[in-house]
Amino acid sequence: MVNTDVLIIGGSAAGLVSAMTVKSVNKDKKVTLVRKEEKVMIPCGIPYIFGTIGTSDKNILPDQGLVNLGVDIVVDEITSIDTETKTALAKSGEKYKYEKLILGTGSEPSIPAWLKGADKENVFTIPKRKEYLDTLQEKLNGKKQILIVGAGFIGVEVADELNKKGFDITLVEILPHILGVAFDQEFAENAKTALTERGVKVLNDTGIKEILGKDKVESVLLTDGTTLDADAVILSLGYQPNSALAKDMGLKINECGFIETDQYKRTSKKDIFAVGDCSEKKDFLTGKLSKIMLASTACAEARVAGLNLYSLSTVSTFRGTIGIYSTSIGDMAYGVAGLTESIAIKEGFDIVTASFTGVDTHPGCIEHSQKQTVKLIVSKKNGVILGGEAMGGRSVGELTNVLGFIIQNNMTINNLLVAQIGTQPMLTASPAGYPLIKAAEIASRML
Amino acid sequence: MVNTDVLIIGGSAAGLVSAMTVKSVNKDKKVTLVRKEEKVMIPCGIPYIFGTIGTSDKNILPDQGLVNLGVDIVVDEITSIDTETKTALAKSGEKYKYEKLILGTGSEPSIPAWLKGADKENVFTIPKRKEYLDTLQEKLNGKKQILIVGAGFIGVEVADELNKKGFDITLVEILPHILGVAFDQEFAENAKTALTERGVKVLNDTGIKEILGKDKVESVLLTDGTTLDADAVILSLGYQPNSALAKDMGLKINECGFIETDQYKRTSKKDIFAVGDCSEKKDFLTGKLSKIMLASTACAEARVAGLNLYSLSTVSTFRGTIGIYSTSIGDMAYGVAGLTESIAIKEGFDIVTASFTGVDTHPGCIEHSQKQTVKLIVSKKNGVILGGEAMGGRSVGELTNVLGFIIQNNMTINNLLVAQIGTQPMLTASPAGYPLIKAAEIASRML
Repeated sequence: MVNTDVLIIGGSAAGLVSAMTVKSVNKDKKVTLVRKEEKVMIPCGIPYIFGTIGTSDKNILPDQGLVNLGVDIVVDEITSIDTETKTALAKSGEKYKYEKLILGTGSEPSIPAWLKGADKENVFTIPKRKEYLDTLQEKLNGKKQILIVGAGFIGVEVADELNKKGFDITLVEILPHILGVAFDQEFAENAKTALTERGVKVLNDTGIKEILGKDKVESVLLTDGTTLDADAVILSLGYQPNSALAKDMGLKINECGFIETDQYKRTSKKDIFAVGDCSEKKDFLTGKLSKIMLASTACAEARVAGLNLYSLSTVSTFRGTIGIYSTSIGDMAYGVAGLTESIAIKEGFDIVTASFTGVDTHPGCIEHSQKQTVKLIVSKKNGVILGGEAMGGRSVGELTNVLGFIIQNNMTINNLLVAQIGTQPMLTASPAGYPLIKAAEIASRML
Repeated sequence: MVNTDVLIIGGSAAGLVSAMTVKSVNKDKKVTLVRKEEKVMIPCGIPYIFGTIGTSDKNILPDQGLVNLGVDIVVDEITSIDTETKTALAKSGEKYKYEKLILGTGSEPSIPAWLKGADKENVFTIPKRKEYLDTLQEKLNGKKQILIVGAGFIGVEVADELNKKGFDITLVEILPHILGVAFDQEFAENAKTALTERGVKVLNDTGIKEILGKDKVESVLLTDGTTLDADAVILSLGYQPNSALAKDMGLKINECGFIETDQYKRTSKKDIFAVGDCSEKKDFLTGKLSKIMLASTACAEARVAGLNLYSLSTVSTFRGTIGIYSTSIGDMAYGVAGLTESIAIKEGFDIVTASFTGVDTHPGCIEHSQKQTVKLIVSKKNGVILGGEAMGGRSVGELTNVLGFIIQNNMTINNLLVAQIGTQPMLTASPAGYPLIKAAEIASRML
């Protein structure tokens, strides 16, 4: 029996950051992190092991931060927990007695139950397990035609990376656009063009019905009735929260399958917190349940849990996910924070939207200059910025964080008009043509 | 006599943006912008005409935005203004009758009165006038050794650009560091190393006493008593606000020579506003008079003046300059917003500071990966972030704007710990190792 003050289950972003936060804030507490994996993948880096990075060995989340702080890392699997006696049982037979528990059990790729043939050889998903990913990468060796199903971020990034490696990639997506849930149409179409120009074949409004072949994949039957030859299929159809252990423990699970948590990331049972992909998310702007899983959101939740574990702070709460993320296709980058236009309208917001396209250097003749577009989604009622989208060169990554802070601070169009930004010829758009502020100007004339 | 509703004097960033704002908000008003220059330089682009851009012809602020909105552009010089009759007289003899007046008369390079030899041939400054810059560029042709005096942003950027072109550049700076007023020591030292490694000779703690030579520059006498041969000297010793016209009009001028303005950018006389380099700046955090001149600040002030010209809005005020800017040396970028550590201490703030260095992609093995450092300057009293500095790859440009919005929203360390950021392998640092948030974590343990 191991006695620990804090037991953390899961070693990905959520587990790592909550362990570091707890131990930083409570130096005297013994913190034990139990995880299944010897080596943990950097979650967002996974698509890039197939191309840019080349191998999962270069995509390892470092343990050094935990080790330096004095967190105990155990590679094992917790199979059951008795919340009465506060005891956890591991696969190895070891038992852990804890005072406080944080669940960061993550998520697993979804495979739809209706999909026939998903059990054939050379049908893959993109989980976060190193061994699986290594095997997948090995098995793709020598293959030619790869079909990727689902054009969310992971599907798009994996498609772009495998295409870079010379595979013949077809990406099918049942929705009319790629990245279509995250972005408005004009951004999604730009991304599709970028991906297509790089050689990926993209089929929208197209799903799969069945994976065909004897034992191995040979072809795929699509929703339009055609079949497509394929040596391998990668299913990228979203992720399911790993909440089975939590359910067994008697924790409340929400209708989307996530562990219910409050603003402190406390679950329905005392002294048990949940963070990251497995834990409930509510949208920052609509208050509705959200299914968006992001490592960066997980890190924020993990900090909140860590800061509140032993003593609550009303100013250190998680105020809802703003759905902030970015992706990259070749030299183009796409970012979003908050609500898209289509979701805002669907939710019943009375909005105006404004877009501005400029260049990300000034003047625009500088060699590395790229077009940059910013779109703002704004409440007509009060000018509050509900969402923002950006596309352009790599600076869009941090520009997305500018949008994120604007939304998290409930800033208005008027706030933006009088806001000070910093500009530099080689690094940003010009002060008089900065797309974010220009979009705000346009929006202001519509309010 | 030209009758106009709004007369704007000056065609650089401040004049341009105030004209556009006024005309957007007041479509029926006749807006006339009088400027001295036929073609206006993009102010921040000027150092880059000497290298990257190659010619001032590619660094022109476009008129299209003004033309499209219906602003009248006149190339002329206003020489005197009668505020009683609301009439402006131009050099050409033309008179303008106005209802509202906005002064955006800009700034001129400073030449210290004590400096002997500044009138010799081949001694230059960096004003914003195209003809001067074209002549300067022409005259540098065939020269070899160039001495640049003053290592602020302009001095550093011009040094880096001319060095790129093969000139033999020495940069002298009386302060112990380059960029030394804007950044704390560790950032300034990194910038010096970057500049030195690129071939620029940097002499700190060194000023000039006299420029020597018959008619032309031949050498320069330095404060340490040595002389240095030079074919040309570029003085980059700061800028003086152009407030002579305003003084003649009877407007109040502050002790630093700037036109006094309030939070709406109104001057001391009714219906007259002033924006940009010529107008008073107060520090956002200290409330003290500031001399920092930035095109991006000018644009924010211009919007404020434009929005308040005909009808005041208490939420559209200029709340003080946060001194937000960035610069670039080779593939390194440096950015700052708010107070540096040294200024915060000097001003009497009780502070903690925290720095974190990570990489700007994740994992760090991605080809375009660069180290990224963020430093936060934090009030011990309440955790409010008073300033931030960043250095790393090009994404530091927009990361500086993240810092800017954090400061402008009076965010605290605690706000940052629970804030959501967006991260992507190719575009940003990792979610668990994002330098801004890691620095906040470190700071939180010191509060």
